[in-house]
Amino acid sequence: MNDFLSLRTLPRDQVQNLVNLARELKANPINDTLRGKVVGLLFMNPSLRTLASFQAGIGQMGGTSVVIQPGTGTWTLETRDGIVMDGPEVEHIREAIPVLASYCDILGIRSFANQINLDEDLADHLMHKFADLSSKPLINMESASDHPCQALADWQTLDELDIPADGNFVLSWAWHPKPLPYAVPRAALTMAALRGMNITIHSPKSHPLPDELVAEAKALGAKSIRNTHTANESLENAHVLYCKSWVAPQNYGDPEAEMRLRKNLREWCVAESWFETAWSDAKFMHCLPVRRNVKVADEILDGPRSVVIHQAENRLHAQKAILTNLIN
Amino acid sequence: MNDFLSLRTLPRDQVQNLVNLARELKANPINDTLRGKVVGLLFMNPSLRTLASFQAGIGQMGGTSVVIQPGTGTWTLETRDGIVMDGPEVEHIREAIPVLASYCDILGIRSFANQINLDEDLADHLMHKFADLSSKPLINMESASDHPCQALADWQTLDELDIPADGNFVLSWAWHPKPLPYAVPRAALTMAALRGMNITIHSPKSHPLPDELVAEAKALGAKSIRNTHTANESLENAHVLYCKSWVAPQNYGDPEAEMRLRKNLREWCVAESWFETAWSDAKFMHCLPVRRNVKVADEILDGPRSVVIHQAENRLHAQKAILTNLIN
Amino acid sequence: MNDFLSLRTLPRDQVQNLVNLARELKANPINDTLRGKVVGLLFMNPSLRTLASFQAGIGQMGGTSVVIQPGTGTWTLETRDGIVMDGPEVEHIREAIPVLASYCDILGIRSFANQINLDEDLADHLMHKFADLSSKPLINMESASDHPCQALADWQTLDELDIPADGNFVLSWAWHPKPLPYAVPRAALTMAALRGMNITIHSPKSHPLPDELVAEAKALGAKSIRNTHTANESLENAHVLYCKSWVAPQNYGDPEAEMRLRKNLREWCVAESWFETAWSDAKFMHCLPVRRNVKVADEILDGPRSVVIHQAENRLHAQKAILTNLIN
Repeated sequence: MNDFLSLRTLPRDQVQNLVNLARELKANPINDTLRGKVVGLLFMNPSLRTLASFQAGIGQMGGTSVVIQPGTGTWTLETRDGIVMDGPEVEHIREAIPVLASYCDILGIRSFANQINLDEDLADHLMHKFADLSSKPLINMESASDHPCQALADWQTLDELDIPADGNFVLSWAWHPKPLPYAVPRAALTMAALRGMNITIHSPKSHPLPDELVAEAKALGAKSIRNTHTANESLENAHVLYCKSWVAPQNYGDPEAEMRLRKNLREWCVAESWFETAWSDAKFMHCLPVRRNVKVADEILDGPRSVVIHQAENRLHAQKAILTNLIN
Repeated sequence: MNDFLSLRTLPRDQVQNLVNLARELKANPINDTLRGKVVGLLFMNPSLRTLASFQAGIGQMGGTSVVIQPGTGTWTLETRDGIVMDGPEVEHIREAIPVLASYCDILGIRSFANQINLDEDLADHLMHKFADLSSKPLINMESASDHPCQALADWQTLDELDIPADGNFVLSWAWHPKPLPYAVPRAALTMAALRGMNITIHSPKSHPLPDELVAEAKALGAKSIRNTHTANESLENAHVLYCKSWVAPQNYGDPEAEMRLRKNLREWCVAESWFETAWSDAKFMHCLPVRRNVKVADEILDGPRSVVIHQAENRLHAQKAILTNLIN
Repeated sequence: MNDFLSLRTLPRDQVQNLVNLARELKANPINDTLRGKVVGLLFMNPSLRTLASFQAGIGQMGGTSVVIQPGTGTWTLETRDGIVMDGPEVEHIREAIPVLASYCDILGIRSFANQINLDEDLADHLMHKFADLSSKPLINMESASDHPCQALADWQTLDELDIPADGNFVLSWAWHPKPLPYAVPRAALTMAALRGMNITIHSPKSHPLPDELVAEAKALGAKSIRNTHTANESLENAHVLYCKSWVAPQNYGDPEAEMRLRKNLREWCVAESWFETAWSDAKFMHCLPVRRNVKVADEILDGPRSVVIHQAENRLHAQKAILTNLIN
């Protein structure tokens, strides 16, 4: 493994090995694997879990983390090629990334979708550009259309909860005040598909996922995949509801059209009543941060179904497995 | 000791032991107590001493610190319960705190008073909520109405200066362009009271401290406590003047009324002339940051009375004593 | 060496020893020189290379770095003496620096020119004030009119590229949307002069460097020094073009006059055509960040002349040599 950009390009066995290593590191968290080593963490966007879990994990492994947040005490970065840089951006990634790579042994980068061009975002164009510019192993800390650290932590969580490999996984849309891209839904689909699960996409008819992502999940090994629109049908025998909001594909890059489309969808806020047909101990998953009583009701987050803290904790362990793999 | 939220709830002996340990760590600063350990530092408000002294101390003890500053590269946090989160805050402390606690061995949190409800602030409602949400030991890095790290460092400073345990301690009001809450005055009163000192509150008649705080100091062991209003009377035989500004209790939550009330009080800026009746080598204390020539004249800060740098340095040692105690 | 404020005040041999040590540390990067030690890094201005390279280097040496960025989660700082601090600044450097020094073993400070008074900036008035206020060794991480860490890394780069000690060094002006001070040009002049090089200042006639800086370079040991205005003449047999923009001395402190003066100088953007008379493998140097296609064309930065990443990497090694020297 030279970079960690997506679960999609890794063999299933290698992903399972990473999960198993994460569980070992959870049991024995302190080691010297990163002694004298430096991990650079470049955040083009805000973060809490990613920042804290990487720094904590690197510290537990004896290493040093260097955090760079352009615009917050650091020069703002230009990403476009061939441009005359006489505007607010003072440094180009063509300099910034090789320089950071020269100081570090591993580089992690977070960079969200700009939501202009769907194809470019689905190709994770910018993250691959970062990888090309970095002479050191690169970790995708969330990109335009993927979030493999989250996916790995989620797999670990499902294993620890003894959710069957071929269990019933429901990816559910929820209302949100902003149109969000496909990074988390795609990462969750990838994970569930590689794990061999039965996948249900639960969403309003207006909000399917892009066809490419459904086809991709099928090709990655999903036992089955379908799109349904009512809680009773979608959650039948469900082991897990994984909640996330996303923009309708037809409105990608058009936030006003999207806000009109979702105007009457505020009742898409996950509640206990959704779980009538699910397994009695079906779990609620979300990658956090989550807007309470907007995407999901307090009763769920404060009740026994929620495993969101468990998922978030596993970010720490999963990422330590990735770092261990990349440093060797 | 499970948390470090206030000196008020600790036996006097335990506080003295912490001070003694701080002095030992000052003599021998480097150890491995925190090797492989992670301390999370969550700042809901700005900081210089607290940030730098915790990070330095954790490093000297072989540990890793993780700094989270909501709004500065990190999601803004909601603290209110039961709210529909469709506004600017994207994450609730009910998720953020358990998640951070899962990454860390100890958590420090700074969160100032919102100055709306005096009773709620005096009860340190929010800091106790943080403690309830954290599965790991919590350090109060300054809260709505307490600042126990400062209090411990101040006690150490008084000991190192050989100020008698039953010496004369003057807590003096000063003018400030903003109405400030009771965190530092209460922490100073608590410390002086536990230490057994004679306490004078020196303030304009319009600016007493809340009665609860005076009663509390008496109950904690103050040898005596009084409120006086002229420098000559207040500083008679004083060993220490501890300077701080605070809002008048009757104006808590009403900044306009407070600014009108203090309009003519700009002469409350500590100067050498205040010390006429004090011991000749009486000391000037302040927790910093301090506005020069607003709260205190240059002549004091640049002269032999000032021990503000000594106090600030002791934050480092005092906090290492707290960390040592909590990690064991 | 008690502080590291400039190359100007160091004997040539000591600078060469630092460069040699930097090259050794590049070959063997991991050590325990800073174990248990704390280095404070105070940034009054933004940074990427300086922040990342210092933190990385300190980590590789087993130490802890503490980063303070006033205004970004930390109180804003007042630098003027004798002022009544009733404005936005809440802490004075007369407290902040001694306090930070008390937590750290070494202090690094970055503070750009305020471009009001040329004499004050050329005297590096503020950086010397910081040095006076700090009880610990101080590193100049770029000041009003110097950048010795960059100069040291540049010397190392020239040595590693086998550029002759008496080679031909061209410091070239370039257009920039803002009037910039003399920190980098002076540091580059100092370095080239101490190294014994033939120096050409290549600039529009309107944009010489201040006479003091030219005289200073001569006194420091430049083999020769001249100011020319056409690429063909300036770059004849050049080994290196070092690119930087600066304000015309007559417009120091008058940005509007300066912008009028440089209005027609946008063609001062380094391009391959400039190198016609230079050595065939002449190098392009720049301290970064650089505005692409404003100060220098893509063809240069993406071509074989550019050594800007090499220079930036050497910041890491040069600074570790400085830290090693100061901690002993």
